[in-house]
Amino acid sequence: MSDLGPLVDKPHVAAALALIGQPGSRDAIPTPAAVLDIDAFDRNVARMATRATSAGLALRPHSKSHKCATLALRQIAAGAVGICCAKLAEAEAMAAAGVGAILVTSPVAGPLQAARAAALSAALPDFRIVVDHPDAATELGAAATSPIQVLIDIDPGMGRTGVHDTAQALAVARAIAAQPMLKLLGVQCYGGHWQHMEGANARAAAVADGMVRLNATLAALREAGAMISVVTGGGTGSFEADAAQGVLTEVQPGSFAFMDREYRDALQADPDGAFEQSLTIATTVISANHPKWVTVDGGLKAFSTDGPTPQPLTPKVANCAFRFFGDEHGMLARPDGQPLLRGERVVFAPGHIDPTLDRYDLLHLVQGDALVDIVRIEARGASQ
Amino acid sequence: MSDLGPLVDKPHVAAALALIGQPGSRDAIPTPAAVLDIDAFDRNVARMATRATSAGLALRPHSKSHKCATLALRQIAAGAVGICCAKLAEAEAMAAAGVGAILVTSPVAGPLQAARAAALSAALPDFRIVVDHPDAATELGAAATSPIQVLIDIDPGMGRTGVHDTAQALAVARAIAAQPMLKLLGVQCYGGHWQHMEGANARAAAVADGMVRLNATLAALREAGAMISVVTGGGTGSFEADAAQGVLTEVQPGSFAFMDREYRDALQADPDGAFEQSLTIATTVISANHPKWVTVDGGLKAFSTDGPTPQPLTPKVANCAFRFFGDEHGMLARPDGQPLLRGERVVFAPGHIDPTLDRYDLLHLVQGDALVDIVRIEARGASQ
Repeated sequence: MSDLGPLVDKPHVAAALALIGQPGSRDAIPTPAAVLDIDAFDRNVARMATRATSAGLALRPHSKSHKCATLALRQIAAGAVGICCAKLAEAEAMAAAGVGAILVTSPVAGPLQAARAAALSAALPDFRIVVDHPDAATELGAAATSPIQVLIDIDPGMGRTGVHDTAQALAVARAIAAQPMLKLLGVQCYGGHWQHMEGANARAAAVADGMVRLNATLAALREAGAMISVVTGGGTGSFEADAAQGVLTEVQPGSFAFMDREYRDALQADPDGAFEQSLTIATTVISANHPKWVTVDGGLKAFSTDGPTPQPLTPKVANCAFRFFGDEHGMLARPDGQPLLRGERVVFAPGHIDPTLDRYDLLHLVQGDALVDIVRIEARGASQ
Repeated sequence: MSDLGPLVDKPHVAAALALIGQPGSRDAIPTPAAVLDIDAFDRNVARMATRATSAGLALRPHSKSHKCATLALRQIAAGAVGICCAKLAEAEAMAAAGVGAILVTSPVAGPLQAARAAALSAALPDFRIVVDHPDAATELGAAATSPIQVLIDIDPGMGRTGVHDTAQALAVARAIAAQPMLKLLGVQCYGGHWQHMEGANARAAAVADGMVRLNATLAALREAGAMISVVTGGGTGSFEADAAQGVLTEVQPGSFAFMDREYRDALQADPDGAFEQSLTIATTVISANHPKWVTVDGGLKAFSTDGPTPQPLTPKVANCAFRFFGDEHGMLARPDGQPLLRGERVVFAPGHIDPTLDRYDLLHLVQGDALVDIVRIEARGASQ
């Protein structure tokens, strides 16, 4: 169990803690609650570790999906070389909880952020951060108190972060070379827009086009004398294509450990989608007066709303429509021919895992029908 | 300043705390950040208090919008009779932070929840909770260690919670009467579906129809001998109509204190919409390599996504399109003829205030251009 801090004083947390180890306690956890089948999680992690080893790729799972140090350390124990963090605050929370190998995958801007990155670099055995602008290199170099490992972030055509063309890449490489305290390890090239494309062939084609672009930039950087040993990128949806292309040396998938409706809908039975739904959101029917539907206690604050709607997994309502019903409630259509009563529990697969888990302070670990542990989601809300 | 607990150890929080009181510090708060213009908040609160007093209505603001005890106590000091909480965990967090008068506006189900409600009732000077099923009355009565004040929740035609018809209302009233420890105060009738209707006349017409339905149920309850002294309901969008109808004795608006794009779009210049945008989300441009847009550090985890998209308020980008760009980033179109540089700050009005603020642990209070305080959002994530 991780240290739950002041959360143990909350009545619903105290009630959940009292359930640990009891048979059937899975269905008594106060709701809404994030519930992880830890055996299914471990199987997902082991499967991805095997795929990465077979492909000769280092595996660095992205912790933006779970934000939880307990799970990050479990992934590292299962063979991951470290984790990715999206933001400095996420990395700071993971570092404070004992994770030693972290790559920050978003560029940061400004002297304060550079100082925070430098402090992390000085404190951790293996800290890395991407840069996509010459000024970022200058800021990091000025803030450094010890050598900082950096990677040049390369835009794969998505336009979110990264250098946009070869000229920008070379300018960043020169700015890094000008800073004695910065050590260039390689590049990052992450195609977020490829991950949810439907169809393995479509994803493979998009990744292939992106790798042409990446290879051109890599060639220019190497010609200019840059030493590139790490090429990191990739996600849950692009693993097969990334492995086939052979350009990346390291992959950064996150969602595979949990899965969600968005990935399941897109990846279907592809090898990239062959992971178990280990993470679910448990809710309770709190009002059942209407003839056509009931109201559960999970709404806009319990689930992400950017992807597909949450999918009921409880068998008798698996085909019943769900829709959001305000901040704190959801509407679930009644099943044909079966009662659905006030107080009943309904479990959902989240629509999009990352922003769903980011709403929860605690993760309830279950094995079979028993709650076995409750751990902090240390980096929840850590977007700064 | 409220007790920030272990949050003070986070580097971005420590950096923000060091800014308090400094001129210009508003624009140095680490982002993404929830920023409240406390003077504008106070003006909004005073305006609503004056409206309620003029209409002879008790004002019980809904704390699901802010989840912050500092603001709840400030609203009570400005004339509110207490606050509403959507869930027990929200009420528990508010009670732990010193709020003594709380109405829980959602029904709860099950013995554990009933025991938590009973504990709150025993601990607080003025605790109230709604019930919408006879079994809820039985559960609360069994859990009570001292008298519990209850209200019958009446569905205004939305179908979310509440008794669906007069027969159900009478059954709940009988179940309450059968419990010696339950004291019936009155009813709740909240029309969430009326709040964002465009046009004051359309809202007034919908409210009028709802009040016909409510009056019929009230008449039946009174004829059956129920003592109804409190009729609570209403929100930011329905205040004028609620006041004109004269059925409610107490109103529950929440968003008026902050405002958001969703309410602003719907209410326009109606009296119901004449509140200031006191709450904003501050972001920073962290990548500016693309010719057509920049990337800010606020994405799916920084803003709600259920309502309209966040609206840029920073003048030079006020007409620039924003769209979500993954979990941690937003895409903002570049303004015509003006630079928009890496490191620049961009401020947004949230699309929907409630689920946006529920993502943040801390609220940054500003006056003019200075950060003046940082307070906890104690009930963040408290949906249980």
